Amino acid sequence: MEQNRVRMEGDVFAKHSGLTLVEMQPGRAKTSMAIRPEHLNGLGMVHGGAIFTLADFAFAAAVNSHDVQAVAINVSISYLRPVNSAMLYAEANETHTTRALAWCTVHVTDDNQQLIAIFQGLAYRKAPPATSTGRA
Amino acid sequence: MEQNRVRMEGDVFAKHSGLTLVEMQPGRAKTSMAIRPEHLNGLGMVHGGAIFTLADFAFAAAVNSHDVQAVAINVSISYLRPVNSAMLYAEANETHTTRALAWCTVHVTDDNQQLIAIFQGLAYRKAPPATSTGRA
Amino acid sequence: MEQNRVRMEGDVFAKHSGLTLVEMQPGRAKTSMAIRPEHLNGLGMVHGGAIFTLADFAFAAAVNSHDVQAVAINVSISYLRPVNSAMLYAEANETHTTRALAWCTVHVTDDNQQLIAIFQGLAYRKAPPATSTGRA
Amino acid sequence: MEQNRVRMEGDVFAKHSGLTLVEMQPGRAKTSMAIRPEHLNGLGMVHGGAIFTLADFAFAAAVNSHDVQAVAINVSISYLRPVNSAMLYAEANETHTTRALAWCTVHVTDDNQQLIAIFQGLAYRKAPPATSTGRA
Repeated sequence: MEQNRVRMEGDVFAKHSGLTLVEMQPGRAKTSMAIRPEHLNGLGMVHGGAIFTLADFAFAAAVNSHDVQAVAINVSISYLRPVNSAMLYAEANETHTTRALAWCTVHVTDDNQQLIAIFQGLAYRKAPPATSTGRA
Repeated sequence: MEQNRVRMEGDVFAKHSGLTLVEMQPGRAKTSMAIRPEHLNGLGMVHGGAIFTLADFAFAAAVNSHDVQAVAINVSISYLRPVNSAMLYAEANETHTTRALAWCTVHVTDDNQQLIAIFQGLAYRKAPPATSTGRA
Repeated sequence: MEQNRVRMEGDVFAKHSGLTLVEMQPGRAKTSMAIRPEHLNGLGMVHGGAIFTLADFAFAAAVNSHDVQAVAINVSISYLRPVNSAMLYAEANETHTTRALAWCTVHVTDDNQQLIAIFQGLAYRKAPPATSTGRA
Repeated sequence: MEQNRVRMEGDVFAKHSGLTLVEMQPGRAKTSMAIRPEHLNGLGMVHGGAIFTLADFAFAAAVNSHDVQAVAINVSISYLRPVNSAMLYAEANETHTTRALAWCTVHVTDDNQQLIAIFQGLAYRKAPPATSTGRA
């Protein structure tokens, strides 16, 4: 877990995108983003890619909060509202894990606890411990 | 369309992420990304957020290639392979449009035409022309 | 709403699939399915299509619980666990609506309140009332 | 493969839903559905659940066309057009497989080769052969 946290904090793309890893506990994580000019798209709105990256960072931290390395294999994201807020927050919770897979839901909210986006991620857990059992 | 192209080229997040708008035609678009250190995650792999943002940029250009403004409402992305390539390319094609909606498929490929990711985007077309007809 | 409820109860495919509409309130709905032999796949497991249809029925009821007609445009479903239960339940809640769109999350659970599947649906609301306002 | 084909042909839910397995080759499959009254929803339209089940059946056949057993873990489906056709067809193609995972795209079309729905499925391959190698 400590090794995974260090790896998360060494995420160059996340850093380059202005993201902060707020919390990382087994099975869950929080990230935040202070909106800056480089997060905007050509319409002057917060970029879908920036919102995705914030949620993806929380997802990666949550599924890598155990002793296995996990990589994203599928993600769905729904954009509910445009952003009118100086900050965005993402909160990731694993909903289920098997030996080889981890399902995770991420909610992106703004300063007013308004739901901005819902993110559903599925990760493949590499190098599972040899003693594990279970369906997948 | 020209106004939309200017807007796409003014996408600050895309620029900040090192993306290039290669082509923008009615209903389709291509983007590219030369992999740089800031595209990597804590595992030293190209970040899922960077791959998403590349695909999302092509998606945004394709659905904004007409005379209406379109915003992303839902996206699904599947990550098929890790990246071993200096460049990535995204090619977006609208598969269907109605008055209010645009469906778009984006393929992300590497230097060897290997498929890296498949992206399925759905956009809401704002301010549709008053004369349009159709189901949605 | 009453008209929509009648329409939901007239859903032939849902009836043919052995589904029950348990509850339908503005913005939410519950459905159930008593597992029968015709819900099984070639492996003797409850069919993904049956689980989807149960969730989809709750989704349809929730987004059609208002005075507008709504049709599904995109759905993502994650299958977390195989089913070991005589009954399945789906609970749908709209997470956000605009003039033209409705986002809805559906949880499928078994007799032991175990989460079986998560369903994320997006519907297009047809014939919106002329007096509505808003982003989409 | 023969065992898997037999299993597919023993899919009770698919049979109950009026589906036909037209073709099953390594990595791809085709299914069809002759529209019947029990495929309709409360609006008299072909039910999203019926379209999903048709696509899901092709997906299951494609990912089970090898010597491993595969189960669906995530699916996204986009509904592009309402159905005005007596028949529907689904064509599934694996886009990539690893030891443990299979990605598959399914196109649902009508009698006029119009695209009705796009389905993106991800399957977990159980009991992978001990000699396999690769990333996942």
